[in-house]
Amino acid sequence: MTTLTLYYAPGTCAQAVRIALEEAQAPYTPVRMDFASQQQRSPEYLAINPKGRVPALVTEHGVLTETPALLAYVAQRFVQAGLAPADAFGFARMQEFNSYLASTVHVAHAHRPRASRWADEPEAQAAMQRKVPANMTECFDVIERHYLGDGPWMLGEQYTVADGYLFTVAGWLKSDGVDIARFPKVHAHSQRMAARPAVQRALG
Amino acid sequence: MTTLTLYYAPGTCAQAVRIALEEAQAPYTPVRMDFASQQQRSPEYLAINPKGRVPALVTEHGVLTETPALLAYVAQRFVQAGLAPADAFGFARMQEFNSYLASTVHVAHAHRPRASRWADEPEAQAAMQRKVPANMTECFDVIERHYLGDGPWMLGEQYTVADGYLFTVAGWLKSDGVDIARFPKVHAHSQRMAARPAVQRALG
Ligand SMILES: N[C@@H](CCC(=O)N[C@@H](CS)C(=O)NCC(=O)O)C(=O)O
Ligand SMILES: N[C@@H](CCC(=O)N[C@@H](CS)C(=O)NCC(=O)O)C(=O)O
Repeated sequence: MTTLTLYYAPGTCAQAVRIALEEAQAPYTPVRMDFASQQQRSPEYLAINPKGRVPALVTEHGVLTETPALLAYVAQRFVQAGLAPADAFGFARMQEFNSYLASTVHVAHAHRPRASRWADEPEAQAAMQRKVPANMTECFDVIERHYLGDGPWMLGEQYTVADGYLFTVAGWLKSDGVDIARFPKVHAHSQRMAARPAVQRALG
Repeated sequence: MTTLTLYYAPGTCAQAVRIALEEAQAPYTPVRMDFASQQQRSPEYLAINPKGRVPALVTEHGVLTETPALLAYVAQRFVQAGLAPADAFGFARMQEFNSYLASTVHVAHAHRPRASRWADEPEAQAAMQRKVPANMTECFDVIERHYLGDGPWMLGEQYTVADGYLFTVAGWLKSDGVDIARFPKVHAHSQRMAARPAVQRALG
């Protein structure tokens, strides 16, 4: 099987894909992008991902992007690792959660570091940034009450790629000015995640 | 097989799921939500989807939400309709596109009608709304150049659930102040879509 190449930057959503690859014991090469020098907008990287973002995964069939798609791809390619439910409803539920993280929670967070995407005026950007703690709190209330059950993992007994994604996004709460301890299930989940060897390898 | 129930509102992203169900000739009951009276925030609906949004699909195993997850679920449940690629890379590519629509393009659009999600001040909301045409143009440039090939469909010869999603999101361009004719491939795609009987049933 070909070695995959993952373009990532530490602490970004690409970390979720790295965790999935580590959990699957997949053969892959991580390539770290330097956001400080805007490497994600270099012509070389835009040739790989014209959207200028991470993650991007180079496979023998072509490049794939978008975190939820990559997570499902890793789970399906390394199916023996059992990183996704085998039944259609369970798989859909995992996809629902990953899609919620990508389209709502990640977006709520991005209004702090990337407010300039959605308005040019500094005052408008500051207004968006002020609302980030409230929006992240609302999102994590949904996660705490609606998505997390008795655990230990997002879907219950089975550890899946969704867990690394939740861990990654929950890692942004502190910089967004929200105390993770407000969400006891999320907090305990993050602690369980931090103890996993694959997670430690992915962060290392 | 049980009848599914789809909660939707006309013209919203839920239309993509309705198109998929019609294409699959799935047994389903559409339930139209009245956004004018804020029915999506009624206690009855919040009991179905605590996030207060459409789409939501009620199945015999429970409720599913999030457009990309629902689209993949419909394709997998009605697999004989051939609405998703059978190979892992093709499926991932479809998921990538649907995830891009949900997390970036839908979000770019939502800053016009739903700017109040991300800032409280009217001036900040107006600033976001001013940037919507530029952001939608940037997104559809990516779709036109990077995602759409020679067609006729998003993935080439095979019609998939991604096509109904693209058609739905492209339908927002006009109200966002962007002329779809700037994107010849997207424009032709929308015209092909409008001619499909399943699409006409979904819009009816
Ligand atoms: N919808 C994409 C979003 C990707 C994304 O926004 N990545 C961020 C890091 S979390 C990025 O690369 N930002 C760099 C930039 O905006 O220049 C996904 O879920 O993968
Ligand atoms: N991430 C969700 C977004 C769902 C969503 O925002 N739906 C809109 C219609 S396009 C809605 O129900 N809005 C009602 C509201 O905000 O009150 C998805 O892709 O399904």
